Parts: sequence; structure tokens; C-alpha cells
Amino acid sequence: MNEPYRHDPAPYPASGGWTPDQPAGHRQFHQFAQTRPFSLEGGGSLRDVTIAYETWGTLNEDASNAILVCHAWTGDSHVAGSAGKGHATPGWWEGVVGPGNAIDTNKYFVVCSNVLGGCQGSTGPASPHPDDGEPYGLRFPVVTIRDMVRAQASLADALGVNIWRAVVGGSMGGMQALEWAITFPTRVRALIAVATCAEASAQQIAWGSIGRRALLMDPAYQNGDYYNAGPDGGPWNGFSVARMIAQVTFRTDSKFNEKFGRQLKDQNFNSDGIDLFSRFEVEGYLDHHGDRLVRRFDANSYLYIGKAMDLHDIGRGRGGLEAALARIKAPTLTVSIDSDILYPAYQQELIQSHLTNNDPRNAHKEIQSVEGHDGFLIEVVAVGRHISEFLTATQ
Amino acid sequence: MNEPYRHDPAPYPASGGWTPDQPAGHRQFHQFAQTRPFSLEGGGSLRDVTIAYETWGTLNEDASNAILVCHAWTGDSHVAGSAGKGHATPGWWEGVVGPGNAIDTNKYFVVCSNVLGGCQGSTGPASPHPDDGEPYGLRFPVVTIRDMVRAQASLADALGVNIWRAVVGGSMGGMQALEWAITFPTRVRALIAVATCAEASAQQIAWGSIGRRALLMDPAYQNGDYYNAGPDGGPWNGFSVARMIAQVTFRTDSKFNEKFGRQLKDQNFNSDGIDLFSRFEVEGYLDHHGDRLVRRFDANSYLYIGKAMDLHDIGRGRGGLEAALARIKAPTLTVSIDSDILYPAYQQELIQSHLTNNDPRNAHKEIQSVEGHDGFLIEVVAVGRHISEFLTATQ
Repeated sequence: MNEPYRHDPAPYPASGGWTPDQPAGHRQFHQFAQTRPFSLEGGGSLRDVTIAYETWGTLNEDASNAILVCHAWTGDSHVAGSAGKGHATPGWWEGVVGPGNAIDTNKYFVVCSNVLGGCQGSTGPASPHPDDGEPYGLRFPVVTIRDMVRAQASLADALGVNIWRAVVGGSMGGMQALEWAITFPTRVRALIAVATCAEASAQQIAWGSIGRRALLMDPAYQNGDYYNAGPDGGPWNGFSVARMIAQVTFRTDSKFNEKFGRQLKDQNFNSDGIDLFSRFEVEGYLDHHGDRLVRRFDANSYLYIGKAMDLHDIGRGRGGLEAALARIKAPTLTVSIDSDILYPAYQQELIQSHLTNNDPRNAHKEIQSVEGHDGFLIEVVAVGRHISEFLTATQ
Repeated sequence: MNEPYRHDPAPYPASGGWTPDQPAGHRQFHQFAQTRPFSLEGGGSLRDVTIAYETWGTLNEDASNAILVCHAWTGDSHVAGSAGKGHATPGWWEGVVGPGNAIDTNKYFVVCSNVLGGCQGSTGPASPHPDDGEPYGLRFPVVTIRDMVRAQASLADALGVNIWRAVVGGSMGGMQALEWAITFPTRVRALIAVATCAEASAQQIAWGSIGRRALLMDPAYQNGDYYNAGPDGGPWNGFSVARMIAQVTFRTDSKFNEKFGRQLKDQNFNSDGIDLFSRFEVEGYLDHHGDRLVRRFDANSYLYIGKAMDLHDIGRGRGGLEAALARIKAPTLTVSIDSDILYPAYQQELIQSHLTNNDPRNAHKEIQSVEGHDGFLIEVVAVGRHISEFLTATQ
């Protein structure tokens, strides 16, 4: 059993609770263990793999109503519902997934698993190494998006799901969805890729890499072996700076202007003077976001999953990007957020424009929003509408 | 005498040489010292101030041909010419300033001074504190763009320049140019503000702040007292990460795609496998830029000048942005780079659109370029053409 990671000594929220393999009302949290070795694309291997997942709704008799939802960088299996053990935050796609929502849990059997390399119940760097029971830390092998997807495929087999009604994801979740439709073209009936890319761009790699450097330079990182350092001893400063970088790329200039402008947080320039460390409101916001992630997420998982995104390239070993996209059989919905500076709209348009399945149900939708990349999580009404229409069209 | 900062033990390039107060061919490098106290906008003061500056060309009899060029964050007084002591890199605006260029040194007396707070000869955190002769470090007071401009005004007085033919600058140089035209409306005959803003936006503050945090968390920063740490002992990792963040904001996604794509630097994925630290080419580029700045620039200067930019707000204490822009009498050229993600075009358009001088020579030009913010330094032909036309129009 892999315990969900949390260095924060505060107790888990009372709501939710964690009952592995026990029904928790409508939602169920499980762990799936594969005890045979799992070989990884980058050359390493894991002796065994546990994948934490949640399900909503009921699988129908011919197993034709299962939808796989894939989470992003710091997400987890908890697509919908209140916070609890195994999911330190409320559902990250409330309003898109749930009873009567676009991904209707009254109708579909919805599955979301914590990615391989994650820290909320699936095997990752914080998990015990089988040799010594100590956390893997930097002994953990590099994983790729394809490895994540192959682990999900084992889970699908175990669940009796041969064909997904749809595979859906935004950002890194969209990378997984793409890899599903390319690696297992006959196991995906509909592909929904939101605010994602066919391959990580140099700028995306740059942002990811700089964040990792900030984290790695924290002396408390201790070469990845910080798990016994206690709640105040980990590389929280470096991790927090890494998160701040990401946070700016997730949002937009105009949103920040609207939300913070030039409001000072700590001092009034005219009455108090100013020092080098006086913060503007936007700096308080960055502190808050850095602090919040650091409490709930494992720093090593952040590094490994970030690297997996940098390595994302559907064309690798497949004769290039166009050849890879030509493997997709499923009708495909791509969704862009017009203000996304991290995964610009041209990346989703490129995916759509290189499909060769000639499926008339293929569609590209652009959402007008000031929210930037985070729009895929925030604009639940627009995202839900496009998904709902596409699921109807692909019935 | 403030020595130019350089922690790199390598000798200064043989070319150039440093001959303070001695003519060096066409170009002259000087230092101007003001021994009376200098009060600062943020509440602090300096007991004396030295401003390093260079001049090109000759001041005419009625002192009507002087142009002030203002430098950006990590710039210095060395607008044109080869590297040498006091300017570790070749001129940063070669092709714009020089004989026969837009800012023609055969015609104009061109002045560029290292900003207050800088590290290339002007008083800054690396300068000796008058109390003990040790570097100021964090004892240095916060300076603002207005402080920089008031120091330049003292220099102008000393040079016998009552009215500048033009004040010109890009990025932080543009902030200074704006403050010149607002603080001293009758001393500026023409204002040229390139890729700059009337007030730092929340996103600009966020990027600056995150870079400072990365620098400050380096244990070798030692609370700013790293000057005796030797060439290998300073906060170079943190400083380098700060520079990397800035470097990405200075360029564009499309330029990075064109220049680096997904080329690996260290390993071949298929033949060698991959580890967490294998770099892509773009990461090598970031390393290079981090390393290069760290060798030539003082980390504390980087912090203080970055803070000055965050504090930039022409409207502060003047009844707001519009009232401040209404003070400008000079005909004003604003120039945007269409791909600039750090100082987006709307910021320069806003300046232009709020001028109230009704001068028919006011002009806004947008340069089409893939170079992003750095386009103001790189696109010398286009920048030069717009400046040249504007100088002709304002003769």
C-alpha cells in the first residue's frame, strides 16, 4: 500500500475520509497492484507497480460506458468530490464530471488514476523501494507519458474495460489521452485533448527545467533524500519557487492586471517607505500557491512528472509527429484556451490538422477566456459544453 | 572610484582598455562624483554618488546636440564599442548608435551612464560603504527609476547639458526616458521609449520577484555579503536561475522552436536511455546565459535594479498614470515589438494614446519580429530606422 504523500503535519480534512477498496457513497477509491516487473521506456524498470484510482458510476454489462479521465501535473485521481485522504484538495474537475455533468456519472463509469510517478497512492519516488522499504527518492527511474499510459492499460484490463467510451484529459492529461489513442488505437472510441500538445516545445521544456533547477538547488533537497527531514526540513523553498514559475505560466497578464494590479501587500510606499523585500499583492499570491502545493505534493514527484512532460513527444520512435497522429482512429475533439501562453492554441490546432482518420466528428473548439492555461480547469461550463456535444456526436 | 564589478578571475579582454577621464579615441569613459548626500525616493539616502558614463562625439557650442541613451536591467554605459574594463561585453546597441547610425555620433553628443544601483562604475551595492569601505551589500538603500534619473540630471548639469536633444531607451531604459520627460518636461526635446511601460504590471512584478527569490535562496548569497567569497563562492546558482527565468521572458516560443526545437544536448534517448538530468539544447542555452551574466554582473545589483523596475510607476504621487503622461511636452516616439511577451505592445500603445501634448510628431511604431522583448536590442535596422525618422521629424 502506497500512502498518499503529505508532509504537512495538519490532519486530513474531516470530510471525505479514505476507505481504500471500500465504497464511499457514489465514489470509490482503490489501489491496483501489479506485482510483476514493469519495464520503462527510458530504460529503467520497477519491480512492482501500484496505481491508485477512483471510480464514479457503474460499469454497464458490455463494459461500453467507461470513460478514462487523465490528470495533469499536480493532479490526482480525485476528479470530483470533497477533499480527503488520498486527495488533499477537492475534485479538480467539478462541474465537468459528476451526476448530470458533461461526463455524467449517472450514465458513465468514470475512472481516474493517479499517474505512475505520482504521490497520491500510485508508485512514485515517495514510495518504498522494495530493497529497503525506504523511499525511492532519486533511485526512482525516469518515467514517460507512455509509461503512465501503459500502467493505465493494465488497470483497464483489470477493470474489464477493453474499449474506453472516451479518454479525456487537459494539459498533461491530454498528453496521456493522445498516447492512449496512438498506442492503443482500437481501445479508444473517442479522444478529447484539451490545452495540450503533441510534443513539448522548447519553451515548455525551458520553464519545466528552470523550475527543477530551483528545486534542486535548495540545500534541504539533500539529493532527493528529504523524507525523514520532518515537516520543516524539506526543500520547500526551492519547490515553492518552482511552483511560482509554473503558476505564472498557467495564468495571464490580463488576469493578473485584473486581480492584483499594482496593489502592495506589505507596506504603503508613501507612508512607510519601501525595502527590497516589501511585497506586492501578486507576490503574496505566489507565496500562497507555492506554500499550498508544497504541503500536499511530493517534491520528487514534481521533478519526475515534470521531466515526463518535457520528454513528451508522440513522434518518438514512430517516424515523427505526423506518422503518430495518423495512427489515431478515434474521432478527436481538441480544445484550446485562446489566452493560454503555456500550451498555445496552435499546438492543439496542429493536432487537429494532422489527423488522417477523415472522421467527420473531429472537431476543434477554442474557448475565449482570460484565465490562460488554467482555463481548462476553471472554464467548466465551456469545457463541459464542448465535451458534452462531442460525446453526443460520437454516441 | 568605484571599480567595475567582475567576480570572474579571467583577465579583462585585451581590446578596449579602461582609461577613466582619458579620451579613448572617439569614445570616452568617465566617472562623475557628487559628494553631497543624495536622498532617495524610497526613504533612504546615499552619502555620495558616483555615476560612470561614456560619451561619443562632441557637444556643440549651444549644447543642443546631446542625446541621452538609457540602458536596461543588466546593461551598462557601453552602448557601442568593443569589450573592456567597465564594460565586460561589446556595445549593447551597436548599429543604432555610432558614426552614420540612427543616433549618429558624428552629429550628436551621445551620453550613456551606468544607472545608480548598477555595478559597472556607478554607485551600487558592490560599492564601498563610506563607513567601513566594505561593499554595501544589503545595506544599500532601495533605489527607484526616478532616483536613477535624478542622478543622471546631476550629470547633465555637470556636462552643461540643459536640454537633451532626445532621451532614448528600451525596456528599463524606456522607463528612465519616460521619467525624464515627466520629471523634467522642459529638458527633453524628444522622447523615444522602446518596448517599455508606464508602470510595471503584476506579471512583470511576478517574474522579477520569482527571480529574486531564486537568487536569495542560494545559501552562498549569505545575506548579500558574498563579496569576499572568491570566484567560486558566490550565489551563482541562484543568480543563474534568476537569469534563466528572465531569459525565457525576453524571447519567444517561436524563436525557441526555430532555434532549439526538441534537440537533446547530453544524450540520445533511444541509444543511451535518459535520466532526470539529461538536458535538451534549450537547457544548455539557459545554462550558458545564466553563467555568462553571473560572471559579469553583481548579484545584489541585479536584485536592486529588478526591484526598481517593479516599483516603476510614473503615476505614483502624481495623481495617476494619465496625469503623469499629461506632463510630457516632448514629441514622443513609442516602439513595440509585436512578439514581446514581457512588455506587450499594449503597454507602449497605452503611453502613446494618453499623451496630451497634441504634437503632430508623436508616433507609434510596431516592429514585426520573432525575437520578443530582446528585439529592441536585436532588430537594430528597424529600431534604427524608426529612431532616425523621428529625429529628422523633430529637428
